[in-house]
Amino acid sequence: MITFDTIQGAHDRIRPYIHRTAVLTNQTINDRAGAELFFKCENFQKIGAFKARGGLNAVLQVAQNNEGSAITTHSSGNHAQAVAFAARQVGMPAYIVMPRTAPQVKKDAVRGYGAEVIECEPTLDAREAGVREVMARTGAVLVHPFDDDRVIAGQATAAKELIEDAAQDRPFDVILAPVGGGGLLSGTALSTHYLSPTTRVVAGEPEGAADAILSFQTGRVEKAPYINTIADGLMTSLSERTLAIIRTHVSDILTVSDPEIIAAMRLIWERMKIIIEPSCAVPLAAVLKRKEQFARQKIGIILTGGNVDLGKLPF
Amino acid sequence: MITFDTIQGAHDRIRPYIHRTAVLTNQTINDRAGAELFFKCENFQKIGAFKARGGLNAVLQVAQNNEGSAITTHSSGNHAQAVAFAARQVGMPAYIVMPRTAPQVKKDAVRGYGAEVIECEPTLDAREAGVREVMARTGAVLVHPFDDDRVIAGQATAAKELIEDAAQDRPFDVILAPVGGGGLLSGTALSTHYLSPTTRVVAGEPEGAADAILSFQTGRVEKAPYINTIADGLMTSLSERTLAIIRTHVSDILTVSDPEIIAAMRLIWERMKIIIEPSCAVPLAAVLKRKEQFARQKIGIILTGGNVDLGKLPF
Repeated sequence: MITFDTIQGAHDRIRPYIHRTAVLTNQTINDRAGAELFFKCENFQKIGAFKARGGLNAVLQVAQNNEGSAITTHSSGNHAQAVAFAARQVGMPAYIVMPRTAPQVKKDAVRGYGAEVIECEPTLDAREAGVREVMARTGAVLVHPFDDDRVIAGQATAAKELIEDAAQDRPFDVILAPVGGGGLLSGTALSTHYLSPTTRVVAGEPEGAADAILSFQTGRVEKAPYINTIADGLMTSLSERTLAIIRTHVSDILTVSDPEIIAAMRLIWERMKIIIEPSCAVPLAAVLKRKEQFARQKIGIILTGGNVDLGKLPF
Repeated sequence: MITFDTIQGAHDRIRPYIHRTAVLTNQTINDRAGAELFFKCENFQKIGAFKARGGLNAVLQVAQNNEGSAITTHSSGNHAQAVAFAARQVGMPAYIVMPRTAPQVKKDAVRGYGAEVIECEPTLDAREAGVREVMARTGAVLVHPFDDDRVIAGQATAAKELIEDAAQDRPFDVILAPVGGGGLLSGTALSTHYLSPTTRVVAGEPEGAADAILSFQTGRVEKAPYINTIADGLMTSLSERTLAIIRTHVSDILTVSDPEIIAAMRLIWERMKIIIEPSCAVPLAAVLKRKEQFARQKIGIILTGGNVDLGKLPF
């Protein structure tokens, strides 16, 4: 059970290692949406994404509680860098299982934080087998990307800061986050529940990875009907843990198409002059798609990260 | 003569209309440079560039002093938007002479601020003739992009804020700005002279528009030997006015090649997650090129703007 004290404890624990990222506004985007938007800029976070929060909260506790002498995880994305970064802060070895097809620049980034990269075939089975092998060989402790209360409590600190920094005079009507495995969305929903109970939490999901909306409806962890989206951080399915929190504390999940995601991403790049990943643009795409639903509301949006390959842009 | 009071007056005048933009730092870039860098983010400024400052300071005074009932200028870049934006703030008509070859998106942006765009042939003669025609027909007052003390005093407020916000405990060793017509560089040098007299001011200039370094050496306003650079905001030559200030208050002008500009631009995009124009990257490129000269120094850099065409990126 993740209580408010759990989240407060996570925040105190990770605070020395993270940035309290800016909350930015933009008049043109407000005009376009017909609402008042506040963007929590986790693209400016350490390692370029909110994942630093959850990775740190888990790894710092493993170290403090002497639960193991090394860390492992499997990831092709920001969680790999987050765990490598966190392990370096506590001086522990990290073994990151990555699909051999992952971009060289991502493998190099993980190695840049001093972690060992173990390559595997690009399947979930191979990734999980790789982690089991590392655990047996090294005694490393697994830090799962989202199916872990300590990771969820860490991710929850982004919405906590957003509410603390931008809702002193008037609460948000709604806070939006994208949903992949559901770690950020669960944490966002819990922080909002404890700190701003009148605020709705809504998720944005790509049509090309629409598992969460299905799971939200059926109450079971479902697979996406198909996977085909530019939002490469959001392809994962939920876990039982994240689905339970989301079913309790999230009001709605809205899906958007890849062209809608790219248009929202371009709007943020052109007007806010900041670099965000396609996954980040999903909530704004949902707001722009359903203007009548959000008209004149005070809206918080978590911009999750800024790690893009500038050689492969969609515009 | 632009005194400290002139700059303070400009700041008080334009403050209600501008953003006090953030000063950002980045550990990776510090490590790469072997120095401590502070970036003044005028890419987040109104209209996406520092030019809003000078345009506002001039236009607000034209309005307050009843010097005319309309504003005109010629520009294909950020100054066009700055003057259009400023004129709208005071409710005056603006006539912007733009080369017919300017990108449609830039013409649209100027019209978006309510200004009238007058197209002309893409030569300096045609642009100046266009402005003279507008002045004769409408009685509009010319706000020159840089050869104007009010514009220079406005641009000076960017360095003033940088010094006020990031040099309270320890003065900058050096502040760098790019140089085109010299409005920003003159203003930066004057603010630094008045507020932080121990700080050197250094300019960055593209090799493919190297007029300022030549003028700095000879003491006369020179043309560039050739014009060929990605830094499209820096192609203009100095005026007598800006050259005189620069010769008095600037320590050095450093030139960099286009590949060096593009590498520095990419470093800022990838590591700071912010969007800057090629012209902005010139000072950082100069620091990275002459590391020994800047080693371990406290360095301020003005990032001038973020208006780029995402469809035409150099990476």
